[in-house]
Amino acid sequence: MKAEIITIGTELLLGEQVDTNSVYIAQQLARIGVDLYYKTTVGDNRGRIAEALRLALGRCDVVITTGGLGPTADDVTREAVADVAGRPLVLVPALLAHIESLFQRWGRPMTENNRRQAYVPEGALIIENPVGTAPAFAVDLPQGTIICLPGVPREMKYLMEERVLPYLREKMGGRIQVIKSLILRTCGLGESQVGEQIEDLMQCANPTVGTAAHAGQTDVRITVKADSEEEADRLLEEMAARVRERLGDAIYGTGSETVEEVVVRLLAQARRRLALLETNTGGALAARLRSVLQAEQVLALTEVLADAETVAARFGGGEEAPWSSPSAAVRAAQELLARSGADLALALVGSMEPGGDPYTARQGVTQVALATPQDVAWQTHHFGGTGELTQRWVGTRALDQVRRYLLSVLRSQGLPKPA
Amino acid sequence: MKAEIITIGTELLLGEQVDTNSVYIAQQLARIGVDLYYKTTVGDNRGRIAEALRLALGRCDVVITTGGLGPTADDVTREAVADVAGRPLVLVPALLAHIESLFQRWGRPMTENNRRQAYVPEGALIIENPVGTAPAFAVDLPQGTIICLPGVPREMKYLMEERVLPYLREKMGGRIQVIKSLILRTCGLGESQVGEQIEDLMQCANPTVGTAAHAGQTDVRITVKADSEEEADRLLEEMAARVRERLGDAIYGTGSETVEEVVVRLLAQARRRLALLETNTGGALAARLRSVLQAEQVLALTEVLADAETVAARFGGGEEAPWSSPSAAVRAAQELLARSGADLALALVGSMEPGGDPYTARQGVTQVALATPQDVAWQTHHFGGTGELTQRWVGTRALDQVRRYLLSVLRSQGLPKPA
Repeated sequence: MKAEIITIGTELLLGEQVDTNSVYIAQQLARIGVDLYYKTTVGDNRGRIAEALRLALGRCDVVITTGGLGPTADDVTREAVADVAGRPLVLVPALLAHIESLFQRWGRPMTENNRRQAYVPEGALIIENPVGTAPAFAVDLPQGTIICLPGVPREMKYLMEERVLPYLREKMGGRIQVIKSLILRTCGLGESQVGEQIEDLMQCANPTVGTAAHAGQTDVRITVKADSEEEADRLLEEMAARVRERLGDAIYGTGSETVEEVVVRLLAQARRRLALLETNTGGALAARLRSVLQAEQVLALTEVLADAETVAARFGGGEEAPWSSPSAAVRAAQELLARSGADLALALVGSMEPGGDPYTARQGVTQVALATPQDVAWQTHHFGGTGELTQRWVGTRALDQVRRYLLSVLRSQGLPKPA
Repeated sequence: MKAEIITIGTELLLGEQVDTNSVYIAQQLARIGVDLYYKTTVGDNRGRIAEALRLALGRCDVVITTGGLGPTADDVTREAVADVAGRPLVLVPALLAHIESLFQRWGRPMTENNRRQAYVPEGALIIENPVGTAPAFAVDLPQGTIICLPGVPREMKYLMEERVLPYLREKMGGRIQVIKSLILRTCGLGESQVGEQIEDLMQCANPTVGTAAHAGQTDVRITVKADSEEEADRLLEEMAARVRERLGDAIYGTGSETVEEVVVRLLAQARRRLALLETNTGGALAARLRSVLQAEQVLALTEVLADAETVAARFGGGEEAPWSSPSAAVRAAQELLARSGADLALALVGSMEPGGDPYTARQGVTQVALATPQDVAWQTHHFGGTGELTQRWVGTRALDQVRRYLLSVLRSQGLPKPA
């Protein structure tokens, strides 16, 4: 079964409102395996709504609309559906009685306008709406089915869950399917590098595999359509195993996990406490770590040096900028390890130009050093400056360095890989 | 100039991501008076993207796409545009040099995949992207213009503002227009009552007038298209004056103003302090008031009685439920006024069934009394229970009662109407 959602409302085309209704409907359709091929948004215009409906019926089996069912003259969804169906609007006494009873209960006068909500295209299937005055209805046509839901999110959600999903399930007969997704989160590789490793998997039709890039990390999304939840999970896991084989430790987590959550968890598992010194990232990294529940149990000292002079005076090696080589970061990490009594000390020493951005700023550098009682390791990142994107990017890569170190510690202790 | 936005990405059709890109683009188009007639969302599917492009070109002059320009195999927007244009994809050396220079700067390996981003349909106008690797481009066809932007919001916004808007302005020649909206917020009338008062105005073509209902209040949105900001403001104000004439004091504010903000402001202007006693609204009303800056300067005591027995024991009149008549609310307001030393005391005494909802619950009632040193006034609302929607609805109507009282106070002091 192929579906299209049409969201109706001029406010949506003026950018005054974010369309969350169609997000919810899309999620619900995926749950029962209905393929959503298109979403269309159109204003409160009878002709254009009708045109969008005709088009949708030409390319899908089921069209779900939201909005345009209110009592006022700008709500014209029912008229547009009647136009497309070639049927008149007819008054439904039961709907009118429902609306009248609500106004009576509220002790409020009912206007002539409210009577409009009791009209539906002739022959429509009424979808009872116990949570509002706007009626919902479905119209079966030779080309397909149109289902009209109110735009008020509370009413739309109730009707979608209680009425429309059961209706669609029945329409689909035995052929209930499910669409599920699994997201593998990676760090340390660019999107194009990830894509190259799994290029052949990205050609598969079911599951499908896609990538999406964020600052310093790349997601791999696996989506499957199957006859049951179990089958879907099995296919997702099979494909996930193939992706894991290719990308290995670059995958730090799944779903909505963040790299800072994983680092905090690994620190706890490895019984290590981390100290942190930041320069150009301005405390952004400490803030990300502290946003994780129970981070304070694995965080020792955190410190921010906010100007280049202090960095140079404390850790610099002479005339060159302290970020021109890894040595200042290495010294900072070693000094921090000694001073804090932590098990691990991470130091980021980066160039300090304001508003640096990996794309627009002049070349910047951040040196990241991780000191342990045994040794110190460093990485040079060719991003610098105090811009928000740089702070995020460099912070993520620094966290990834800690993460990979902790994985090696846990493996050397013979513990299973925790991710 | 008529426009359509096409947002591209399978994650949007799975309900995994809310589409905010098109909201931003819609706002920007409105700023320069481009009419947005449709928004379409389509997955990462070359054939369906091409189909959506053909359709959009058939009904609009300009089509703006976002997404599908990444380096990996699932990004197929440029291929689909090439299909529609009937032109091959060609390598643009300047784009390749830009991408190569970024990877060199970052000290990261460039993959074969990244080279894909240097291809555009032959004859395309390159829209330089200094904030990312994904190139943007425009293709002029006899049917209209396709403008392709990346899906990363930061890059899309930059390119929209710095490149696309100037380009569209130039394309429109002297005929730059502006689309502006004004929202009048009303309280105390149902959507259908508001609609009936302004039914004739809702038939106007420019400005257009529409309504939208929320819990206990109704918005009137006026939208205009004009040749200049000044002209737009003048037309908006003219229509707003006509709407104000019809709806009078039912209009409590404009834009994003809330009724609690207005009440706090009016309390300050009238130099009055408010005390508040809640029952079934469970403190929700006090919380709304306290969310307003400087509310503590106009709020005296606030109190919540959370069970029916306490309400009956303190303010009940015998065997009947304390919300069956206004007398308990009146007693509560008078007692609160005396006890708190405030200038105004508002008491809400409502039926206490859990999860009450104006549509689904059995009939409920909330009595609202407002006591002043001079007198006490009350209103009976046929909503009751402790459901969230009831709390919002009844709270808004109670605030409206305070608001209308304060307006009368300010008028009697000869002060101008402040709203």
